[in-house]
Amino acid sequence: MTDGQILGIDIGGTKLAVGLATPEGGLLARERRPSGMVDGPDAVIGRVVEMARAVISEAGTGAGEVTRIGIGCGGPLDPWRGVVLNALNNAGWIDIPLTDRLSDALGAPAYLDNDANAAALGEHRFGAGRGTANMVYLTVSTGVGGGVIAGGRLLRGENGNAAELGHLTVDAHGRPCQCGSVGCLEAYASGTNIAARAREALAACDEPSRLRSGPVADLTAADVSAAAEAGDPLAARVWSETTTLLGAGISSMIHAFNPSLVVLGGGVTAAGDLLLGPVRRAAAERTMPWLHEVVRIVPAELGDRAGILGAVAVALDGPRTLAERPTSHVHGRTDA
Amino acid sequence: MTDGQILGIDIGGTKLAVGLATPEGGLLARERRPSGMVDGPDAVIGRVVEMARAVISEAGTGAGEVTRIGIGCGGPLDPWRGVVLNALNNAGWIDIPLTDRLSDALGAPAYLDNDANAAALGEHRFGAGRGTANMVYLTVSTGVGGGVIAGGRLLRGENGNAAELGHLTVDAHGRPCQCGSVGCLEAYASGTNIAARAREALAACDEPSRLRSGPVADLTAADVSAAAEAGDPLAARVWSETTTLLGAGISSMIHAFNPSLVVLGGGVTAAGDLLLGPVRRAAAERTMPWLHEVVRIVPAELGDRAGILGAVAVALDGPRTLAERPTSHVHGRTDA
Repeated sequence: MTDGQILGIDIGGTKLAVGLATPEGGLLARERRPSGMVDGPDAVIGRVVEMARAVISEAGTGAGEVTRIGIGCGGPLDPWRGVVLNALNNAGWIDIPLTDRLSDALGAPAYLDNDANAAALGEHRFGAGRGTANMVYLTVSTGVGGGVIAGGRLLRGENGNAAELGHLTVDAHGRPCQCGSVGCLEAYASGTNIAARAREALAACDEPSRLRSGPVADLTAADVSAAAEAGDPLAARVWSETTTLLGAGISSMIHAFNPSLVVLGGGVTAAGDLLLGPVRRAAAERTMPWLHEVVRIVPAELGDRAGILGAVAVALDGPRTLAERPTSHVHGRTDA
Repeated sequence: MTDGQILGIDIGGTKLAVGLATPEGGLLARERRPSGMVDGPDAVIGRVVEMARAVISEAGTGAGEVTRIGIGCGGPLDPWRGVVLNALNNAGWIDIPLTDRLSDALGAPAYLDNDANAAALGEHRFGAGRGTANMVYLTVSTGVGGGVIAGGRLLRGENGNAAELGHLTVDAHGRPCQCGSVGCLEAYASGTNIAARAREALAACDEPSRLRSGPVADLTAADVSAAAEAGDPLAARVWSETTTLLGAGISSMIHAFNPSLVVLGGGVTAAGDLLLGPVRRAAAERTMPWLHEVVRIVPAELGDRAGILGAVAVALDGPRTLAERPTSHVHGRTDA
């Protein structure tokens, strides 16, 4: 089938983004709205369908020209059945057959994956990862998530939940994590936890710090990186611990997956070289030479197109990789 | 091609094992000798060829009945070219075209992979992992190594070094590791490091312990587990830290790969339920429910056949998975 235009739908905790794109990733039109997930799946699906019709109309696309629909959504979900199991831990979002619902409403086959896998597929097809066969995508944002391309294919695992890279242990005796474990990468490196660690450091001492100049409860990760860059010693310590543990986590990913590229996305990467420089050094110190010599750590390229183009990449990748579920006792055996 | 008999060759740091097997993993004959790697590649390859001819003769196999040769060897190596880059860090073993040498001498196509990948393929085809599509194999022995089956395929990575699972960071501020990093799983859970940690614990206090009953320099991981089982408090603390960090490392692997099975092999697993019980509990505490609910942690099944049957599995898997190298800028792009 020759691809016409592709609808990319990004369902996030705070916003919905819908765009229409060419198979080469050219954006023809897009819309963004608050998601209002608490209104429940019927309302949100209705909103998404309206947005899709609006972008189709805006682009002047005719009937039948949209050939596929791709959807990125918070997990856990089942990409093979296209069902959201529990979106963003939101009560009404249990077992929602999202691909069937959107396919019926919009008249094209739909494909679903979680937002981090979608972003990984987007960077792989359209962004920093073009041409790579082995790539790790890591988003460092409110939380820390990931997606992995291994041997040219998205790594899905047994039930679609591979690459939960924010929950690799980096300090087994360390900080409690929201997931219930201890010492996860996310417990240090997410934006939320960078700010929380700064508040803890401030509460533990009387040392002067620029971070005390406003209400401590409102501190963000961006405040911490800005103060560290300005030479504030307390902020610099918090930031240094952040980059050390992020480097350790990335080193674990390099030992696990032996990628040629690690792509860093998410809001915390807005700190630029203040993040990338020390993270690259920490990862280099911790990684075997023959793994390190083939890998680069680079920023993501898609910026505010990441959500929509990730969903478009899900639509383009899905027909090839979701047709058969390589799951134990189904297509399990490796036969020569 | 219908498979006849398959030669499995396991080149280890201390021993060579060569066996002849059916494609179903039935062992027809085998031999074992000290490897003497320091004698250099020519001598060792000569020894392996002699052993191969001996097992072929012992099994009464006729000319042309051996259709493939599989080789497992310490890395780093290049499985696609069949070249050992630096076997077991042994000086004479640099850039040895092992598959060409053995194929020429023995008259059948040869396939090579590292020993941990070979053991993973062996357990997947013939042992505890039969029928699984997503499996992690972890060997806990003198060192800690691994091999991963993802979506029915061995995970190789960019240059064949994926699944260096002993070098996932479990405590970023922890013990130095032989690899040059800090806080690797291997720095806690390998047999060598379990014994070293017990010696450090003994040196750090005067607490009575059964572990002081012999020369402390001769302590082994088996001594530590036996003393822990007998109720020795110091040994129990060392053992508990071992199983906690092994559980944390396995939890990282489950979050990375979302497997249905984690197979534990290697000498340290001789401790049986004393290891498995607390490792399962530690991994469960640290793993997200939707990942934990699909995974089991089980002992390896192949025992002293692991080396040979792993190599046989390399021979059976190689023609399918080594034909094309899915490496960046070669077969890199994911196209729908």
